[in-house]
Amino acid sequence: MSDQAFATQLEAIVGAGNVRTRKVDLVTYSYDATADVPRRIPDVVVRPANTGEIQAIVNLARARGIAIYPRGAGTNLSGGAIPLAGGIVLSFQRMNRILEVDAENLTATVQPGVVIEELNNAVAPHGLIYPPDPGTVKTATMGGSVAENSGGLRGLKYGVTKHYVMGMEVVLANGDKVRFGGKTVKNVTAYDFASLFTGSEGTLGIIAEITVKLIPAPKFRRTMMATYATIEDAGNTVAGIIRAQVIPATLEILDRKTIETVEAYAHVGLPLGAEALLLIEVDGMAETVVECEADAVIRTVAEHHGELRLAKSGAERDQLWAARRAALPALASLNNTVILEDATVPRSHITGMLLACAEIGRKYDLVLGTFGHAGDGNLHPTIVADRHNAEEMARVHRAVEEIFQTALQFGGTLSGEHGIGIAKMRFLGGEIGESGLNLMRSIKDALDPWHLLNPGKLVPAREAPHEGR
Amino acid sequence: MSDQAFATQLEAIVGAGNVRTRKVDLVTYSYDATADVPRRIPDVVVRPANTGEIQAIVNLARARGIAIYPRGAGTNLSGGAIPLAGGIVLSFQRMNRILEVDAENLTATVQPGVVIEELNNAVAPHGLIYPPDPGTVKTATMGGSVAENSGGLRGLKYGVTKHYVMGMEVVLANGDKVRFGGKTVKNVTAYDFASLFTGSEGTLGIIAEITVKLIPAPKFRRTMMATYATIEDAGNTVAGIIRAQVIPATLEILDRKTIETVEAYAHVGLPLGAEALLLIEVDGMAETVVECEADAVIRTVAEHHGELRLAKSGAERDQLWAARRAALPALASLNNTVILEDATVPRSHITGMLLACAEIGRKYDLVLGTFGHAGDGNLHPTIVADRHNAEEMARVHRAVEEIFQTALQFGGTLSGEHGIGIAKMRFLGGEIGESGLNLMRSIKDALDPWHLLNPGKLVPAREAPHEGR
Repeated sequence: MSDQAFATQLEAIVGAGNVRTRKVDLVTYSYDATADVPRRIPDVVVRPANTGEIQAIVNLARARGIAIYPRGAGTNLSGGAIPLAGGIVLSFQRMNRILEVDAENLTATVQPGVVIEELNNAVAPHGLIYPPDPGTVKTATMGGSVAENSGGLRGLKYGVTKHYVMGMEVVLANGDKVRFGGKTVKNVTAYDFASLFTGSEGTLGIIAEITVKLIPAPKFRRTMMATYATIEDAGNTVAGIIRAQVIPATLEILDRKTIETVEAYAHVGLPLGAEALLLIEVDGMAETVVECEADAVIRTVAEHHGELRLAKSGAERDQLWAARRAALPALASLNNTVILEDATVPRSHITGMLLACAEIGRKYDLVLGTFGHAGDGNLHPTIVADRHNAEEMARVHRAVEEIFQTALQFGGTLSGEHGIGIAKMRFLGGEIGESGLNLMRSIKDALDPWHLLNPGKLVPAREAPHEGR
Repeated sequence: MSDQAFATQLEAIVGAGNVRTRKVDLVTYSYDATADVPRRIPDVVVRPANTGEIQAIVNLARARGIAIYPRGAGTNLSGGAIPLAGGIVLSFQRMNRILEVDAENLTATVQPGVVIEELNNAVAPHGLIYPPDPGTVKTATMGGSVAENSGGLRGLKYGVTKHYVMGMEVVLANGDKVRFGGKTVKNVTAYDFASLFTGSEGTLGIIAEITVKLIPAPKFRRTMMATYATIEDAGNTVAGIIRAQVIPATLEILDRKTIETVEAYAHVGLPLGAEALLLIEVDGMAETVVECEADAVIRTVAEHHGELRLAKSGAERDQLWAARRAALPALASLNNTVILEDATVPRSHITGMLLACAEIGRKYDLVLGTFGHAGDGNLHPTIVADRHNAEEMARVHRAVEEIFQTALQFGGTLSGEHGIGIAKMRFLGGEIGESGLNLMRSIKDALDPWHLLNPGKLVPAREAPHEGR
């Protein structure tokens, strides 16, 4: 069967306007937001309108042995959306409806193509929020963020995507449609499929519908910035805040390199001599509690020699957050390639990890800034380099490997929120061991023996090399 | 090989004192807390001391094709701990150590045999709690409650067991030891194995070590009881409290039959004319917030014609809770068999479900009281009957079937917190469909192709009948 015949079969499923085969249309599907990973132009992009069409596409692809790569907005940071083997990119552009907001049960049901921010806009009139907030909320889709179990800035207090997924409809590689979970707060019927598919990076099934939990929107907040002469003081402040039993909604850190780069890029008035900066926001339903928590934070900052700035208005708050939001674009402006890692450690090792990252940057003579979610130990060591400089890229790769090894030595994990994808697959065995890899392979083979769904991601092939711990 | 030879091989692994083969020692392992399910005396009970011994037992059992039934305290309510095929009961009595309380990272690491209340006693001096609280906290083990994903009274505000499991060590049926997850708040490395094994009812692996999340203990609480002349008023109060964006720590309901039975049994001063009673507790870190929430509850109760009683002391609080705690023993005192169900519906259907349960009780002429966790839709319709009366038991079975069908019609689930086990296996297909059953079988077969671990539970055999939805 020719490729044209295959495209015609796909058109019979989704309609002529929803199958793309011209190279000019395909090239934007050859990459995602990940640097330093291979690119590949798919053979075809198809845009189904409903679950039945997804099933038909899966059945057709399986019959022909053609890989399917589900894709939301392509904001993936571990190469998870790249069509490594060519084949079909299954885009959710048309499945972008919010099916229901159920304010009484505090749930929303959405199609995978709904943008996270759109969901929040839809539930706001009910006084509700959907808390998971990766940096890309304005573009990333619900399907993509569920498939990746996205984290974000509010993880410490509000948890991550998996804590909000209550039910799903999924199309399996065998073409079956399965629904599980739902609107009940408690559900122990069957294995916890919602959690298994959340974070499975598109390798076990295609998510076709999602029911998520919503929570009442916090009514009050206080936002603060604290600057420090040492990393240790900043790290001790993080530990001290938790020890005071205050769980801030956000607790972010920027290191010296990031501060300097942000200030040069955005001129937001950051103190150039500081070794570290914390951005802290406490929120809640009652003003007195929020004030009380803010007071505890202010005391803790003072105890650890931090210099505090308290936002006195919405505008001042926005200004403080502008510094954090500028971290990635500022670092990215320094060169053509940004390697954004998300090695994550237990909270108690934040200081050690920050110092180690700075040392690794010096050791390999790289531009390395670290920022991230200090409250939950999820740091983003970020290396800026020139991808055309092979010698420098070799140093980058050694540095990244050392960052991962350091995180694991601290009892941490390879990835807090970006996923394994293709970017970290070869390090996976170092964390979960050969028995863990075999367990992953068993599950992949059981659900997708044809390796039809997002092949080449997350689950290393049996012969693949991996790092010893 | 004789059974004695097998026992000798087990003794070589765990020591002579930790293998039981005398019938008098085995009989207490033939059942759990579930009524109306088969019993079976195991061939042997073995008590390993560590993960290595579990691996050796698994390897020996697999070589001989002998089933293994992991067992904590046997408080299971779906027949999950019963050694249906005889074989080995693997008891965690000796693996009962709290390995670490890490107050800085808000985690605890325990062996499976630790009793839930013991963990809470150990973390209390740090001002922390482990929130999941099934009714059996004083006896149930961490391993059992993780394997069953236990719920309890605080599910509405604090979630259930799976929301607190961060990492595990598991022995698979192939003898492999796998560790995954850990102390990091964020972790997207590999599939979400911690969630897959939580609630897998011992069918996929043997949990050998568990790391759980702890939270700061709430400092203040207010406890109230409200009584109602109609079920509808009570149900509308539940909905109204959530609509007021108050999430109580506990929000329990007792219906007329339960109230009358409790009062006759325990004489705690319950109003005998009432159709329903709500027990409500709000808690938090700040007194003002807790007072504010209590005020909102009081207003909502009044709006829906409830008669309120507010606990003014710890003793009065204990008295209110005594009524709830007496619900099950009071009903149980009425006859020799208590069928305790946990059909669960979305919160908005609580009223409908309560009315339906009462109607089903009348229709089948049974003693049926309903109580449970109204806030999270998790009800316990409880039928009291005489197991020696075959005609009555037939009516019980028809009533139970109708309760499940009703819950599913309301968009609910077969089991909110007790699990599927053997008690609800034949109804499972009615909720997740044939494609869902096949998905379960695929995962079971992939991880335990020998059907070595807790066989006959949760996952229906391919030829098993099931109910259409």
